Amino acid sequence: MPAALHALKDFSDIHINLVGNQALIEAELASKSFDKNRLSITHAEQVVDMDELPSKALRNKRQSSMRLAVNLVKDDVAQACVSAGNTGALMAISKFVLKTIPGIDRPAICTSMPTMKGHVHVLDLGANVGSEGESLAQFAVMGSVLAKAIDGNPKPRIGLLNIGEEEIKGHQRIKDANSLLKLIDINYIGYVEGDDIYKGNVDVVSCDGFDGNIALKASEGVAKMIGFYLKAAFNRNLFTKFIGLLSYPVLKAFKEKVDPRRYNGASFLGLRKIVIKSHGGADAFSFFHAIAEARLEVQKNVPALIAQEVATLLTPQVIEATHNEI
Amino acid sequence: MPAALHALKDFSDIHINLVGNQALIEAELASKSFDKNRLSITHAEQVVDMDELPSKALRNKRQSSMRLAVNLVKDDVAQACVSAGNTGALMAISKFVLKTIPGIDRPAICTSMPTMKGHVHVLDLGANVGSEGESLAQFAVMGSVLAKAIDGNPKPRIGLLNIGEEEIKGHQRIKDANSLLKLIDINYIGYVEGDDIYKGNVDVVSCDGFDGNIALKASEGVAKMIGFYLKAAFNRNLFTKFIGLLSYPVLKAFKEKVDPRRYNGASFLGLRKIVIKSHGGADAFSFFHAIAEARLEVQKNVPALIAQEVATLLTPQVIEATHNEI
Repeated sequence: MPAALHALKDFSDIHINLVGNQALIEAELASKSFDKNRLSITHAEQVVDMDELPSKALRNKRQSSMRLAVNLVKDDVAQACVSAGNTGALMAISKFVLKTIPGIDRPAICTSMPTMKGHVHVLDLGANVGSEGESLAQFAVMGSVLAKAIDGNPKPRIGLLNIGEEEIKGHQRIKDANSLLKLIDINYIGYVEGDDIYKGNVDVVSCDGFDGNIALKASEGVAKMIGFYLKAAFNRNLFTKFIGLLSYPVLKAFKEKVDPRRYNGASFLGLRKIVIKSHGGADAFSFFHAIAEARLEVQKNVPALIAQEVATLLTPQVIEATHNEI
Repeated sequence: MPAALHALKDFSDIHINLVGNQALIEAELASKSFDKNRLSITHAEQVVDMDELPSKALRNKRQSSMRLAVNLVKDDVAQACVSAGNTGALMAISKFVLKTIPGIDRPAICTSMPTMKGHVHVLDLGANVGSEGESLAQFAVMGSVLAKAIDGNPKPRIGLLNIGEEEIKGHQRIKDANSLLKLIDINYIGYVEGDDIYKGNVDVVSCDGFDGNIALKASEGVAKMIGFYLKAAFNRNLFTKFIGLLSYPVLKAFKEKVDPRRYNGASFLGLRKIVIKSHGGADAFSFFHAIAEARLEVQKNVPALIAQEVATLLTPQVIEATHNEI
């Protein structure tokens, strides 16, 4: 809610429709000042629980805030849906209601992450387990479109996540994707390893949802552990606490660089409309970033760009040619 | 070399056999003082290149330092081999020369990593891609033995690496391993996610080599990126540099906690003898830790303990029972 009001203030070109329990939303809005012409409320009777099975949410929660929000996008009442709810349910509902772009088998979850030189887009992060070569190539093309549209990067470098052991290198499906990506007109730079994600030498990393999820979660875990020990080192005694106080501006500048909240807002790429997933535990600052991401994707019309690029690059002829090569 | 001499000094109970170009080794040793009775040299004509295909190294490099070092272990001249060479080649040669423990299909690469509460053993880290359920269960048992022997942990908590999305949770082989691990007598705590590795709530994480490699490399990448930004923040200007100087003892204490060099020395578990892989770019401090790990595994006789536990836990009856359940 504070994020929505913040976004309304910062972006004069947006309208926000809050979907949920109307009475609760109104009660919370009562004391706030905001432009009433650009905020509306859609009442929802149901809520999708965080641990609800996606298939059940899809079947039984047709009056949930999540379903109604996605419906608003389908009906062109809204141009994008931003939700911090159950990821699996949001994906299942979005796929069912909004459908995928022709040429895309399955949508992918894409987020950006900080690197030593800027940021990188990584997809898929968990929507698809055991993606075949063609899906991985689709992820690569979608990521490339996103990097071009959002970052204004004319020639994003695309990598395929793999491991380094020469002879056993990766699963067959990764090798298939590699063959396919070599044949199409994107800036494919080949295999990248887990540590390459953060080096700043690649702009888009395509990977299976399982692999991407492992990479993302392990990264989050390490970052938290490092933060934990850094804090502990400065909290050890009065002297170190004093040093910590002195270091505050330095540590603050450092934290801003790697603050995961600035990267909140994962795109469900491959859908015909825009759906952005915010972290479940997002604070207002994070959620604002998810709204900003949605706004940017609407401005650039990312789904249309993806549809166009997929139709141009992943033609049946190209896919046929790869099959012959494999 | 400095690591070997350091180890000779610190551990009065070890003998070190340096395998490599004798003339070069002797030249480097000439100016050093050490206990000559506990250091010998085995001359090797060949070297396995870092980018050599494991199968080629196995076939063509029978006089390499790597091969001769593993041979020394096979012939009981040495109780363990420590190498910083080509990982794939070291695994191929070790497997061929030393063989696997009965009941173990494929050896796994296991390393320990820091957590918020201590450390965790993770395996496999890249020797096996697409491991079936039985292999993952074997990794779990081997890791459990290692944690018991090396850490003196009587009941190590064993987790299986997976992702959190309910309905699509993991590959079939992970579900198979889950069923198997529930049936055997180890302290199996269920699925863990990438971030759980670093929380300190699990002592052993079993995973496929592809998944483990992705997790490890992504973690390394993030840690390096964070270090990079931390350094940059303290190097920004004269004032921050001064703060950095003051913070030096704090940052040093912090670094020691997460220093990857302290965790250098990956065990090839599942072989009949002990082989330890050091990081390729290891400095003397790191390599010393790899030697210390080898010494510890010799003292505890880890391969014998694994053989015993595998024979007890992974009986044909148990495996049969799981097949029926799956």
